[in-house]
Amino acid sequence: MEDSPLQPGAADLPDRLHRARRAAADAGVGAMFITPGADLRYLTGYQATPLERLTCLVVPSEGDPFLVVPALEKPAAEASPAGALDIEIVGFGETDDAYELIARRLPAGAPLFAVDNQMWAEKLLAFQAALPGAQVSLAGDVLSGLRMRKTPAEVAALRTAGAAIDQVHRRIGAWLKPGRTEREVARDIADAIIAAGHATVDFVIVGSGPNGASPHHEVSDRVIAPGDPVVIDIGGGTADGYRSDSTRTYAVGEPPAAFRELYEVLRTAQTAQTDAVRPGITAEQLDAVGRDIITAAGYGDHFIHRTGHGIGLETHEEPYIVAGSARPLEPGMAFSVEPGIYLPGTFGARIEDIVVCTEEGGERLNLTGRDLVVLPS
Amino acid sequence: MEDSPLQPGAADLPDRLHRARRAAADAGVGAMFITPGADLRYLTGYQATPLERLTCLVVPSEGDPFLVVPALEKPAAEASPAGALDIEIVGFGETDDAYELIARRLPAGAPLFAVDNQMWAEKLLAFQAALPGAQVSLAGDVLSGLRMRKTPAEVAALRTAGAAIDQVHRRIGAWLKPGRTEREVARDIADAIIAAGHATVDFVIVGSGPNGASPHHEVSDRVIAPGDPVVIDIGGGTADGYRSDSTRTYAVGEPPAAFRELYEVLRTAQTAQTDAVRPGITAEQLDAVGRDIITAAGYGDHFIHRTGHGIGLETHEEPYIVAGSARPLEPGMAFSVEPGIYLPGTFGARIEDIVVCTEEGGERLNLTGRDLVVLPS
Repeated sequence: MEDSPLQPGAADLPDRLHRARRAAADAGVGAMFITPGADLRYLTGYQATPLERLTCLVVPSEGDPFLVVPALEKPAAEASPAGALDIEIVGFGETDDAYELIARRLPAGAPLFAVDNQMWAEKLLAFQAALPGAQVSLAGDVLSGLRMRKTPAEVAALRTAGAAIDQVHRRIGAWLKPGRTEREVARDIADAIIAAGHATVDFVIVGSGPNGASPHHEVSDRVIAPGDPVVIDIGGGTADGYRSDSTRTYAVGEPPAAFRELYEVLRTAQTAQTDAVRPGITAEQLDAVGRDIITAAGYGDHFIHRTGHGIGLETHEEPYIVAGSARPLEPGMAFSVEPGIYLPGTFGARIEDIVVCTEEGGERLNLTGRDLVVLPS
Repeated sequence: MEDSPLQPGAADLPDRLHRARRAAADAGVGAMFITPGADLRYLTGYQATPLERLTCLVVPSEGDPFLVVPALEKPAAEASPAGALDIEIVGFGETDDAYELIARRLPAGAPLFAVDNQMWAEKLLAFQAALPGAQVSLAGDVLSGLRMRKTPAEVAALRTAGAAIDQVHRRIGAWLKPGRTEREVARDIADAIIAAGHATVDFVIVGSGPNGASPHHEVSDRVIAPGDPVVIDIGGGTADGYRSDSTRTYAVGEPPAAFRELYEVLRTAQTAQTDAVRPGITAEQLDAVGRDIITAAGYGDHFIHRTGHGIGLETHEEPYIVAGSARPLEPGMAFSVEPGIYLPGTFGARIEDIVVCTEEGGERLNLTGRDLVVLPS
């Protein structure tokens, strides 16, 4: 679907491009090559699909940026927000070599170029062949510094997405009932994600009973039984590209006592973590806040993933809230806080909110209750 | 959503892996690294999402293949068809270095490794850092030779997908009416793509009037007017992963005489091309069959893209039907035949069928009529 002209920060696009160029120059990068994906959308507003033909924004440290697209995509590129930017859009034909075309426009002997982190290998190798002797690095090293510090317009967009996914969680009881399969419940939830104002359904995880113990289980034909705990982790993208992502764990009728005990530990840990968000705390410190509580309660071996991931134009982006990351949080960073406890073969639980770091502490963007919701069985 | 256990050729998976290994060894490749995407699904049946954490099938030329996954994805990987293969599934923790883990399991000094064509640049660079001195090539050079020669089960899957998208084209008149926007029409078509038996909507192009002259226009809020030619190019994926893709051009009421004339040239060219499919004709020869007819009629400058692309687990894959490709077609190859004529600012037309090359010639998998359909205005 085409770009929304109302993308948050569309007015900021020229400034983003300017800051990206400066950051690249500071890092000694001669040129950045950005193929379709969140980086391209962030810098130009152009929402293109990655395909076998090259589409690439070239951001030289000296000289003007330009966008190279297949000739048949040129009208679409010009109609996108990129067409309103002061950058040349260069079309190439089916039998032209787009990599050579780009190489010829760059100063000879550029020592270092940077590619977007998700550029396809076939395209990276083609650039290396067209620019022999040049070194290659990741544009993410430059761009994630910009993307992870959200502007107020971007935070507002994430708040809107969070409110939309909260609407869906508030109605889970309409669909989550014993006797239905996970897949049936997931279909209803997917419809509700769109009805709540998202443009896309990104993922729907319905993990009932033992399936809740597999963090990335999606759905199955398992029939939900009375007393099952059910992990529901859902998210989508709004028309402007910003993502939602929230997990709640439900019980369909009274769950086993051992589950209630586990859930209370998790709720305490997740609440402590969202409360601990403030500028200056490091990602690994925030991870430890919840992990220590879960470990002290004897579940340490069953919290098998990091605490969270940044979110914005991608569901998973910097900053990652993970052991080993000494990155201090800063105002404008937005990320998930989603500890989980998983007992293989038995059940699992996860609670997830998106939180934005502000000068005053963390602002939660998901506001449904965190107490265990026991639905009628 | 999880894998279907009924994927066509699931019984062939061990054989595919065996043949891929042999082809890699013949090409001097020490190990292939295959991340989530169509190659991974083709070789293992595992339908994983590309994410920041590494998931990678390692296919060494000597020794056994193994699948490396984040610990939290291991249950999902084991539940997928990959779990039924005789390959080890190796989980790694959040703070482990998966690239080092793989490098340690390979023979020291492997001179050449191959990565799937769509591997993210960040992962390719991490492999290069973990395997200093090794050369890198594209696994597509090895795997496309296997993937583009479809088995009878795969052709049957493409035939099913083709019949499903034909159902949608047969009902276009229910939705395509003057006074409606392209976006409204596209929403109805997307619902119909699912209702016809697809699991996913891959794309819906509704290009009315002048928008039909932009080959990759998707949709807009343009209101369809009486007399408009409208290009409708749609496709989806079935539960087993095989794709459909078919274009028909409609007129909403009697179109301009100049459009009828253009359309007849296009119909003649596209029919000549589907009739010309046979083993031994090269991709560039097949492209020329249609291009020569269009050029002779004076529209050569307005057929601005290749004739077609291969199709299977991806909508666009080898073989590409394009000038400069001397590849001879072989039985089992499946691809689109989709010439188009585009008059910028005025209108455009495209006709697209998926065709399979057989010993006896081309078998069309899209069977709706190719005469211009004039709908009531």
